[in-house]
Amino acid sequence: MITRGVIKNIKTSSVLINSIKTTQCNFSSKVNYDEIYKKHLKISEKKFNKQEIIQTIKDNTLFSWNPTEAAANKALIMEKGEGVYFYDTDGKKYIDFNSQAMCSNLGHTVPEEVIKAVEEQLRSAAYAYPCSIVTPIKAKLSMLLADLFPGDINHFYYTSGGAESNETAMRMARLFTGRHKILARYRSYHGATLGAMTLTGDPRRWNSEPGASGVVHFMDPYPYSFKWGETEEQITEMSLKYLRETISYEGAKNIAAIFIEPVTGTNGILKPPKGYLEGIRKICDETGILMVCDEVMNGFGRTGEMFGFMNSDNVIPDIVTMAKGINGAYLPLGAVGCRGRVADYFKVNPIGIGSTYNSHPVTLASAYAALQYFLKNRVLDNVKTLEPVMKKHLEQLKQRHPTVKGYRSLGLFGTVELQKNSKGEPFVEYNGPAHPAMAKLSQDFVDNGLYTLCRWSSFFTNPPLTINEKELKEGFDILDKALTNLDKHFEK
Amino acid sequence: MITRGVIKNIKTSSVLINSIKTTQCNFSSKVNYDEIYKKHLKISEKKFNKQEIIQTIKDNTLFSWNPTEAAANKALIMEKGEGVYFYDTDGKKYIDFNSQAMCSNLGHTVPEEVIKAVEEQLRSAAYAYPCSIVTPIKAKLSMLLADLFPGDINHFYYTSGGAESNETAMRMARLFTGRHKILARYRSYHGATLGAMTLTGDPRRWNSEPGASGVVHFMDPYPYSFKWGETEEQITEMSLKYLRETISYEGAKNIAAIFIEPVTGTNGILKPPKGYLEGIRKICDETGILMVCDEVMNGFGRTGEMFGFMNSDNVIPDIVTMAKGINGAYLPLGAVGCRGRVADYFKVNPIGIGSTYNSHPVTLASAYAALQYFLKNRVLDNVKTLEPVMKKHLEQLKQRHPTVKGYRSLGLFGTVELQKNSKGEPFVEYNGPAHPAMAKLSQDFVDNGLYTLCRWSSFFTNPPLTINEKELKEGFDILDKALTNLDKHFEK
Repeated sequence: MITRGVIKNIKTSSVLINSIKTTQCNFSSKVNYDEIYKKHLKISEKKFNKQEIIQTIKDNTLFSWNPTEAAANKALIMEKGEGVYFYDTDGKKYIDFNSQAMCSNLGHTVPEEVIKAVEEQLRSAAYAYPCSIVTPIKAKLSMLLADLFPGDINHFYYTSGGAESNETAMRMARLFTGRHKILARYRSYHGATLGAMTLTGDPRRWNSEPGASGVVHFMDPYPYSFKWGETEEQITEMSLKYLRETISYEGAKNIAAIFIEPVTGTNGILKPPKGYLEGIRKICDETGILMVCDEVMNGFGRTGEMFGFMNSDNVIPDIVTMAKGINGAYLPLGAVGCRGRVADYFKVNPIGIGSTYNSHPVTLASAYAALQYFLKNRVLDNVKTLEPVMKKHLEQLKQRHPTVKGYRSLGLFGTVELQKNSKGEPFVEYNGPAHPAMAKLSQDFVDNGLYTLCRWSSFFTNPPLTINEKELKEGFDILDKALTNLDKHFEK
Repeated sequence: MITRGVIKNIKTSSVLINSIKTTQCNFSSKVNYDEIYKKHLKISEKKFNKQEIIQTIKDNTLFSWNPTEAAANKALIMEKGEGVYFYDTDGKKYIDFNSQAMCSNLGHTVPEEVIKAVEEQLRSAAYAYPCSIVTPIKAKLSMLLADLFPGDINHFYYTSGGAESNETAMRMARLFTGRHKILARYRSYHGATLGAMTLTGDPRRWNSEPGASGVVHFMDPYPYSFKWGETEEQITEMSLKYLRETISYEGAKNIAAIFIEPVTGTNGILKPPKGYLEGIRKICDETGILMVCDEVMNGFGRTGEMFGFMNSDNVIPDIVTMAKGINGAYLPLGAVGCRGRVADYFKVNPIGIGSTYNSHPVTLASAYAALQYFLKNRVLDNVKTLEPVMKKHLEQLKQRHPTVKGYRSLGLFGTVELQKNSKGEPFVEYNGPAHPAMAKLSQDFVDNGLYTLCRWSSFFTNPPLTINEKELKEGFDILDKALTNLDKHFEK
C-alpha cells in the first residue's frame, strides 16, 4: 500500500464542527481519504434531523426546476414511505396524491418480491455491457413486455428513463424512415434531455433552447385558450384537418414521426376526443410517418387501461416509450418498444447509440418482479374499480366549492381546474405569474398532510394505483378542507 | 374486482410451445393478464439455457451499436459475476479486462455493504420526487462528494448516467454564462443522448446528426494522423495556440464552456501533455469560458488519481460530470459537481430541467456505500500499486509481439495499439473497414476466457480497480497467447 499524503484540508458541511472549509485548492496538500472514510463511518450511522438535512442540502446540492435556495427552504423530507403514505423526520405523515412524479404507482412499500429480485440480481450479475453481453433477466422481462403489449409490439430496448426512451424513439424513427423532422404537440412534456426537451411543447422547454433541429410543434385537440369546435366530433375533425394541413406544409416525405402522449399528462390529463388517435394512425399509414406514443406516464394502468393508446379503437402505434410505471419507479428504468417492421429494420441496421446503463440487469430485475406483482394483485382491476369512485369525489368537490371550475379524470389520472371568480377566470393564467391563493392552497395541502402537484390554476389527483377506497376518501377529505379555505378568495 | 375478458391472443416467444403468435391486434379480444401472470410465474423460476436466452433476445429485444441479428449471434451471456470474473450459462469463465464498459470498477461481486444499503433504502424510502422532496441519503452522499473533491467543488446534482450529466453541465454552463456555444474535442466521447452525442467528437456521433446547435469541435493534442510537434512542450504549445486561435474565430463572448475528458478514454487513453490542462484553465480564466471535465470514465480512481483532472498541476474545473465509478455501476447513477461561483448562481436561478430519476434515493444509497467501500479498502492505493505492474506487462507484450506497436497506460487505464507490418500500419485504419485478423483476435480473447473491448487497431486493458497482481498476470497471459496468433499475420 502506498502511504497517503499529509492532511492539509478536509472539507466538511457546515452542519459539522471541528472542520476547515477550503475554497482554494492545492493538490500538493492532498485530501486525506482515510480521514474522510472515518468521518463518514460516523455520518452513515447518524440520524440527521430536519435542520441538518436541509442545511446539508443547501451546502452541497442543486435543485432542478427551481432555484436551490428557495426550493430547499420549501422542501419536504421523506424519511420513510409506507403504502400510499410517507413520513418526514418528525414523523409527520403525508398521503401521496401524485404518486410523487406520477411514478410511484405501486406505492411506497416496495413489494418483498421486488426487494428479493433486486438483491438476487445484485448477487448474481449486477452489471453487464449491453452491446456484447446479455443476461437471462433481459430475456425474461422482454418476453413479458411482448406478452403485455397488444399487436406486434414485441421488441424492446432499455434505457434509464423516459427522456432517454423518447430520444431513442426519435433516433429510431429518423433512421427507419430516412426523414428528419418530428412532429410533437405544444401541450406536451417528453423529458429533460436535449432531444426530449425539444420535443416537449410546454414552457418547460424554453430554458433548453435552442434545442435540436427538426422538431415542429402542433396544437392539441384541447388547446388552453381556444376551441376547435363545440362537439367532440367537431374537435376531432378540425384537429385532424389542421394536422393534415400542417403536414402538407412541412412535407410528409420529410417527417419521420408524430409523438403524442395518448392521454396528455401534466399538461392537463386530457383524453383525446373520439376518433383522434384513430385519425392520427390513419394519417401515419397514408404518409409513412411513424406514430410514436409516449407511455411514460400513461403506461401500466394509470389511465385505466394497460397502455394509454388502448383507450382508442384498436390503434397500435409504431413505437412506444415507457418508464415510471414499468417498475413503480423503484429504480431508474425506461424502455422503447416497436412493431415488427421497425424491429426488422434494426435486425440488420444499428440503432447507432449505446449508453452504459442500457439494459442494466438490476433495473430489469426490478421491473420483472414489479410487473409480476402488478399482475398478481390485479392492480389494473383496482384502477378500474376506483375510477368511478374518484370521479364521484371529484364531482363532490365541484358541487361543494365555487373555486372548482371543473375536473377531468380517467383511471386514477385526475386533475382539478380552479377559478377565482364566477367568470371562470383562473388564479394563475397558463404560464402566468404566481397567485398567493394558489401558494396558500399548496401550503394547506402540505399542512394537512397531503402531497400533490399544483400547476398554474390546477392540481392533480394521481394516487398510487394500489390505493384503496378508504385512503382515496381520506385524500379527498383533505382536498375538500383546503378548498374551503381557497373559497374565501372567490369573487362572485 | 372486474372480470377479465376472454383470452383470444396470448403472445409468447418462439422458445415456448403451446402458444399462438399474434401479429394483428384486436383490442376487443383483450390480452388476458391472468394467463400472462401464470405463464411468467413458471418462466421466472425456469433456468433458461443459452439457446433459449439468445432466441428470446432475438425475438424480443434490440441491440444498440450493432444490428440486432449480428450482435445477438455474437453475444456472450453473463449469468454470474464474481470478483474480476464472470460466468456464462455453461459455466465458462471470463476475466473482465475492460470492467464491462470501464464501469464495473469494484468488480462483479457487489460488496455486502452496498447490497445492504440498497435493501435498506428500498425498505425506507425507495423514491422521492426530487423537485420538492429530499432524503437523508441525498444529504449524506453530497457531503461525501464535497469531501472527496478538491477545491470548492461542493455542490452536486444527480442524474441517471454520464450522458445526462454532460447534458446538465451544458445547460448549466449556458445559463450561467448567457453564452450558447460549447467547445468539445474530436477525439472524445460524451454519451448517447442528443446533446451529449453532439458533444462527442468521434464517429459514433454521425448516426445522431443533425444534432444540437452551437457545438464546435477542436483537435486533441494527440490527433490520429498528424502531430502538433515532437516534444511534449511543443505539442502543448501548438495545441494551445491552435485552441486560442479557434476561440478567436468563434468568439469567446459566445462560448459557454470547453468540455474535455481530462484523460481521453475510448479514443485512446491519452494523458494530456504537460501543461495542457493548465493552459486550458488559463484560457478559461481569461475569457470567462467554463472548464468542464468529463470524469465519467476517469473519475474515482481509474487514472491512478481520485479524479482525472488531478493528473494536472492544481487545475480545478468549473464543472465536473460523473457516473460509472461513482457506484461501480451497480445501479444507474450520474452526477454533476460545480464550484462555488457556479453554485451561487443556481442558488437564485433555476437549472430549469428536471428528470424523474434525478436523485433517485436507491441509487444514491448504492453510491454512498460503494464510495465508503472504495475508501475503506483503499482501492486508489491498489490502483497506484498496480500501475507499474500493468506497465511492465504491457512492455513485455511489446517486447514479445511484433504486432504490438505500442501501449499507453496510467493507473489501471490502458490500451495496446497494434500494427500489421514493420511500417507501423494498423490492421484497421481510424474508423476504417474491419480486418479479419482483428476479428480473430477478438474471438481468441473470448475463446481463451478474456473479455475486453477491441476498437479499430487497438484493445483495452481496463480491469476492475480491485484486481490483484495474480489476476492481472492471468489476464496478460491470455493477451500474450492471443497475440501470438495475431503475430502470424505480421508482414515484415
